[in-house]
Amino acid sequence: MANPSPGYSITLRVEAPSAFSTTAELAAAVGAAGASITALDVTESHHEHIVVDVSCNTTDAEHGEKVREALNELQGVTVRQLSDRTFLMHLGGKLEVVPKVALRNRDDLSRAYTPGVARVCLAIAENPEDARRLTVKRNTIAVVTDGSAVLGLGNIGPAAALPVMEGKAALFKQFANVDAWPVCLDTQDTEQIISIVKALAPVYGGVNLEDIAAPRCFEIENRLREELDIPVFHDDQHGTAIVTLAALTNALRVVTKDLADVRIVVSGVGAAGSAIIQLLVAQGARHIVACDRKGAINSDQQHADPHRAWIAQNTNTEAFSGSLHEALVGADVFIGVSAPNVLSEEHVASMADQAIVFAMANPDPEIDPLIAAKHAAVVATGRSDFPNQINNVLAFPGFFRGLLDAQVSDITPEMLVAAAEAIAARVSEAELNASFIIPSVFDPQVAADVAAAVAAAAVTEPALAH
Amino acid sequence: MANPSPGYSITLRVEAPSAFSTTAELAAAVGAAGASITALDVTESHHEHIVVDVSCNTTDAEHGEKVREALNELQGVTVRQLSDRTFLMHLGGKLEVVPKVALRNRDDLSRAYTPGVARVCLAIAENPEDARRLTVKRNTIAVVTDGSAVLGLGNIGPAAALPVMEGKAALFKQFANVDAWPVCLDTQDTEQIISIVKALAPVYGGVNLEDIAAPRCFEIENRLREELDIPVFHDDQHGTAIVTLAALTNALRVVTKDLADVRIVVSGVGAAGSAIIQLLVAQGARHIVACDRKGAINSDQQHADPHRAWIAQNTNTEAFSGSLHEALVGADVFIGVSAPNVLSEEHVASMADQAIVFAMANPDPEIDPLIAAKHAAVVATGRSDFPNQINNVLAFPGFFRGLLDAQVSDITPEMLVAAAEAIAARVSEAELNASFIIPSVFDPQVAADVAAAVAAAAVTEPALAH
Repeated sequence: MANPSPGYSITLRVEAPSAFSTTAELAAAVGAAGASITALDVTESHHEHIVVDVSCNTTDAEHGEKVREALNELQGVTVRQLSDRTFLMHLGGKLEVVPKVALRNRDDLSRAYTPGVARVCLAIAENPEDARRLTVKRNTIAVVTDGSAVLGLGNIGPAAALPVMEGKAALFKQFANVDAWPVCLDTQDTEQIISIVKALAPVYGGVNLEDIAAPRCFEIENRLREELDIPVFHDDQHGTAIVTLAALTNALRVVTKDLADVRIVVSGVGAAGSAIIQLLVAQGARHIVACDRKGAINSDQQHADPHRAWIAQNTNTEAFSGSLHEALVGADVFIGVSAPNVLSEEHVASMADQAIVFAMANPDPEIDPLIAAKHAAVVATGRSDFPNQINNVLAFPGFFRGLLDAQVSDITPEMLVAAAEAIAARVSEAELNASFIIPSVFDPQVAADVAAAVAAAAVTEPALAH
Repeated sequence: MANPSPGYSITLRVEAPSAFSTTAELAAAVGAAGASITALDVTESHHEHIVVDVSCNTTDAEHGEKVREALNELQGVTVRQLSDRTFLMHLGGKLEVVPKVALRNRDDLSRAYTPGVARVCLAIAENPEDARRLTVKRNTIAVVTDGSAVLGLGNIGPAAALPVMEGKAALFKQFANVDAWPVCLDTQDTEQIISIVKALAPVYGGVNLEDIAAPRCFEIENRLREELDIPVFHDDQHGTAIVTLAALTNALRVVTKDLADVRIVVSGVGAAGSAIIQLLVAQGARHIVACDRKGAINSDQQHADPHRAWIAQNTNTEAFSGSLHEALVGADVFIGVSAPNVLSEEHVASMADQAIVFAMANPDPEIDPLIAAKHAAVVATGRSDFPNQINNVLAFPGFFRGLLDAQVSDITPEMLVAAAEAIAARVSEAELNASFIIPSVFDPQVAADVAAAVAAAAVTEPALAH
């Protein structure tokens, strides 16, 4: 990626001569080194020198070092310290567990804890449903991972996955007032994960599975849905599918094409790819070609994996056989949930007129969106530093808000579609254009709309009682 | 228990005639019914009638109903509603999970979540120790239970145990800024509990085991201590033992007796009893008789349970054989961690002069402390509504604060003793008397003193590295 990004934001503490032109020279040097300056604060001023905090976005760690060198080369300038603002933000973790009740005195303690709490315990022992009324279960979900498929980083393990799960929990709280707690499991055994999540369930009103590798994630989700009386949602599958459907709905409005007619190529048939394809088929897409690393999946092949077998039977009606790049020729829509840089400019150029490109690999997309935009009419990515971010945060906070509010025990396909439609509908006709096919993740109304749509779908299509 | 308690605090919404004497009559009726009034608020006033919220402490739910009847019997008075203030306090749970970082805009999101978070993940994958710097592991512990021995209520299960664990977590935060999360496990299988806690460990800097029945709790604690690189502390054992030793140290100062000389009878050899006996022996107590339901444990008996076997070998040097009540005759100290009402007034009267009675069964003590105080010089209970509350909250918040601050991986006996001495030392000579042998749980200095003592003991006696 060539663009400076706030994900690589740094602050350099610089000592420089006291002169009228100093700050301008610092800013110019940072700009000449290719970084984009975001703040410039004089923190000390002396007769001979000043100390300035220069904050700027860079493209990567190496680029940050180049900016440091560029400043050091200026006459009389010394960089004292380079701080990485992303790391500063994560210091000490991103969550805290805060009491909702004050414990100021003995009376408070007697009610919140012993002896008063004993009566609350007995009430729940007598009527287990009261747990949803008298405990955190009412508003709390588990964000569960085994660290096996974290972002685009792969199998980095549960400890290294924790910063993502904390960030996710922070988003749940900020966007939908859902209390979410990270559960990073030091096991990648399917049966053990299932049995652990079942054992943890008394505390939670829902389970969000996260960054668990396919095909393990399918078995874990299916079994937990069968065996638990709280909703289980694998965000990498269904969260991504919901937002992708929402974005595609609006992208098709921009190019005035119809879902039933367009040729769609999906790159990647892992957790996200499978769920997207299923939701698109359910919504009436008829011309989908799904590709894995070996190329197009078609019904002439034998697939042991049940998800690939389903895809082979339910997509690619023309039995196209060939590579991803061959499949893309003349296609209307590319949906990438695979790996960085699998496409080059010529592949996007080979697509149909008014093409739609969703390059959603994280953190580095299938193709640089600026290059894709040279040929495609609508381009979206999974990144927050470009327009049209296909970001699950549009779905998961409101989705779980709705599940908790309606005390849902099972998730239905109707709830997924209702959530996608609610997100798409947040973009009005007046707002809709090729750079605004999905609402901002900071649109304060999205989560409430999704929650209401999910709760309404729960009432219309009640899940079977357990 | 005959005393009205804030654990049974109720608010009655009462409609009564508008008259100068009304509130006085309401207060008199509540008092005549045996409840103690805590607040009286007129919430509506009309020409003919007023609406008053009458808050009072009662002894139990039945007593609350009697107060309602007493008010309804007054001329022109109707009780509209009776609210239980303890239940109101627990509505919706007592904890929330709150982000420590603001997510106000796209730049924040790019640093706290994707793409910036990926670099933080990679840093931890490369250097796992960084998890203590860059995640909640630095300040977070798990409060783990299987719901098998909750307060004095017994095996009520994980869902019904949750209000206690939430209260515990609230205390951790309030008293020592430790983030604590309830883990209520829907299994009572020892091996499964061990394997689950091991799998959960990446998120936590320590484990507080809570309300797990003996003897399972011993095996779970021992194995987790061996197999994890974070400290594991069974609060029902060691928290209780720390505070009991602190209280006994000061009680002996009040009656000017020496730990090495006094005859101590311990009722209950479960988790708490075993740990108390071990810590007392370690501190030099020489005359301890431990009793279970069958009476005194002595070395003439055969014990399959290794804890009873240890007690038989290391206590009761005179090989006393007989009932709890027989053991108590002439004893200096009674320490009860057993069951409600196992003692009557005559048993306390049979003890030595200047006797010390710690009746710590929860929520109802081994004997009504007001009755025990007729004969004993010092009386303590586990309850917050009497003086001398032997409450683990004096130990566990500061203890874990110290463990986290010193990044301790293993707990040593020296840390337990250091914590007890720090608590005892909070009561100055000037403050010390029979009704003030331990500091208030609201003493703002206790947790910091305990934390400093534990951290100092960790430096003096470093645990073996893993």
